[in-house]
Parts: sequence; structure tokens; C-alpha cells
Amino acid sequence: MKASGALELGEAPKGSTPKSVANRGISILDFILRLIAIIGTLGSAIAMGTTDETLPFVTQFNRFRAKYDDLPMFTFFVVANSIVSAYLVLSLALSIFHILRSGAKGSRIILIFFDTAMLVLLTAGASAAAAIVYLAHKGNAKANWFAICQQFNSFCERISGALIGSFGGILVFVLLILLSAVALSRR
Amino acid sequence: MKASGALELGEAPKGSTPKSVANRGISILDFILRLIAIIGTLGSAIAMGTTDETLPFVTQFNRFRAKYDDLPMFTFFVVANSIVSAYLVLSLALSIFHILRSGAKGSRIILIFFDTAMLVLLTAGASAAAAIVYLAHKGNAKANWFAICQQFNSFCERISGALIGSFGGILVFVLLILLSAVALSRR
Repeated sequence: MKASGALELGEAPKGSTPKSVANRGISILDFILRLIAIIGTLGSAIAMGTTDETLPFVTQFNRFRAKYDDLPMFTFFVVANSIVSAYLVLSLALSIFHILRSGAKGSRIILIFFDTAMLVLLTAGASAAAAIVYLAHKGNAKANWFAICQQFNSFCERISGALIGSFGGILVFVLLILLSAVALSRR
Repeated sequence: MKASGALELGEAPKGSTPKSVANRGISILDFILRLIAIIGTLGSAIAMGTTDETLPFVTQFNRFRAKYDDLPMFTFFVVANSIVSAYLVLSLALSIFHILRSGAKGSRIILIFFDTAMLVLLTAGASAAAAIVYLAHKGNAKANWFAICQQFNSFCERISGALIGSFGGILVFVLLILLSAVALSRR
């Protein structure tokens, strides 16, 4: 994958040692992984952000409607995933820069730092939302918090599904940081 | 801090260029930061793990007692912080190895990878616990989940305080990954 990607690029600028070719392969893999992470996090943000279920009955006091912004952790989840996917789109520029100039050093360190910060943000959002999804499914007898998934069935399916893209994004970020570290060490 | 730490070490083995001296300074800072993170995460695990409040009245049905393991997210928090602090203790060995051999490459990549994985585990634990602490303080009207902090006052103070060490640990891990990246690039 890496090697063939590097070879497909064809002609290389000055100083194309085997190491710089390998680094170009790493940069191309980096670019592809970022595209995957954009799909995952943007999908998660949209899936959670459009969640809205209204039950087919109304009482005097309640409208029995569940939206993602009823719970602040879900709002945080949508905001975190949106910020991370916007960051990923911007970082594609640096990723392309690294494909063209595989010897770049300072920009890779900057990328590792921001990748790590975004990994923390994404993990925090996904984990907070997962804790609430767990409560919604199981409830907690000690705290007298009841499971709400019996009533809001499709709401619960939607919020559970939205977590998948986010957790996929976390895995990709760990790989991205590892790839950047390998590229830094190979110079 | 970095420079003086490197100078205090006095004699350096073969090939002590300015770069390897700077790398030794980074490794010493790495070691100190790991010690700080151990205190933070171990403190968090102990603070949360020993949380236990029994209210001074008993009814026929309830014992009105709050422990950390009433909520699975708090158990996860204790487990995550324990695993991370155990990892940090083990990683001190590699950190010392890097002080002695500042040119090491492969072991720094391994360290970055495991640091990142542990960062994810720590963030997930802290964030899930924070979500529940938030619910315990504020409750949620839409989901009919009531705030439990009015009754379990000291329990709530304890679980809120336990988060601090964990979030401090997250900051330290981000710095550790950044330091390792800088050290890798300086070879």
C-alpha cells in the first residue's frame, strides 16, 4: 500500500533516497487516513445532530419529544466532532505539503501536537456521549435514573450508532500520530 | 529547566554533540513529567476508589449509601487511572534509558504509541466520569434524571475532586507526546 502509493507518484524532486520515498508513502497513507477520519467524525456529528424523535401522543404537561440537545453531553459530542472534522479538512493541506516535501520536520511536530489535542477532544466527546447512551439503555437503580430507551426507541438507536464514527476516528488518530512519529524518525 | 538539567548531569558518554545534550534535557523533563502524571492519576484512582458515603438515616427499603461502584463509569474511571499509573511506572524505565542513550529511536516510537493509547484510555475514563458528575450535580429534566448531590453532598465533592488529577494527567500526556516528537526530530 505505502510503497505502491509512493511509486505511483512517479517523478520525485531532488534527493529522492529510499528513505524519502518511504516517507512519501507514509505521507500518502496519512492523507488517506485523514479522509477516512473526516467521513467518520462528520458522519457522527450529522447523525447525532439530526436526531429528533417525537412520540405519537401528547399530554397536558409534556410533548414527549427527544432531541440531541436535551442533554449537554450530546451537544458537546456534536461540537467536538464538528471541530475535529473541520480541523481534519484544514490539516489535509499540511498532509499534501508532506507528500511534496517529505523531509519537512517542524510542520510534522506541529501536526503531532494538534493531532494529539484533537484526539483528546474527540475522545472526551465520544466518551461523555457513550456514558449517557449507556445510562439511557440501562438506567441506574441506585441513583434513581431510569432507562429512557423503552420510550424513545429510534432515538436510542440513532445516538448509539452515532458513536461508531467517533470511535473509528479515535483509532485513526492514534495511527496518524504513530505514522508521524515514524516519519520524523526516518529523516 | 531543560538546559540546566542536562548540564547538571555533568559528564556525557561518547559523541555528546549539542543536539544529544538537548535530547538528554528533553529526556530528563520527560522523566519528571511522568512522575507528576503518576501522582495525578494514582491520586485520582485512590480518591475515587475510596469514596463511600452513608447517610445517617435508614428506611425499610433503602440504606442510602453511595459508593463509587454504584455507577459503572466510576468503576471504569478507577480502572483506567490504575492502568495508566501502572503503565507510567513501567515507562520510567524507558525514560531512564533515553536519558542514558539520547540517540535511541525505536524505543521512542514505541513510547509515543503507548503514550497515545494511554492518553485515550485516561481521557475516556475522565470524560465518562465527568459526564456522570455533571448529571449528579445538575440532573436532567427531560430524561427525568434527578440531581443526587443534594443528598450525597460529600460523595459529590469527592467524585468532582477526583477528576482533577485525571485531567492534569491528560495535559501531561499531551506534553509527553510533544516532547518525544521533538526528541525524535532532533537526532
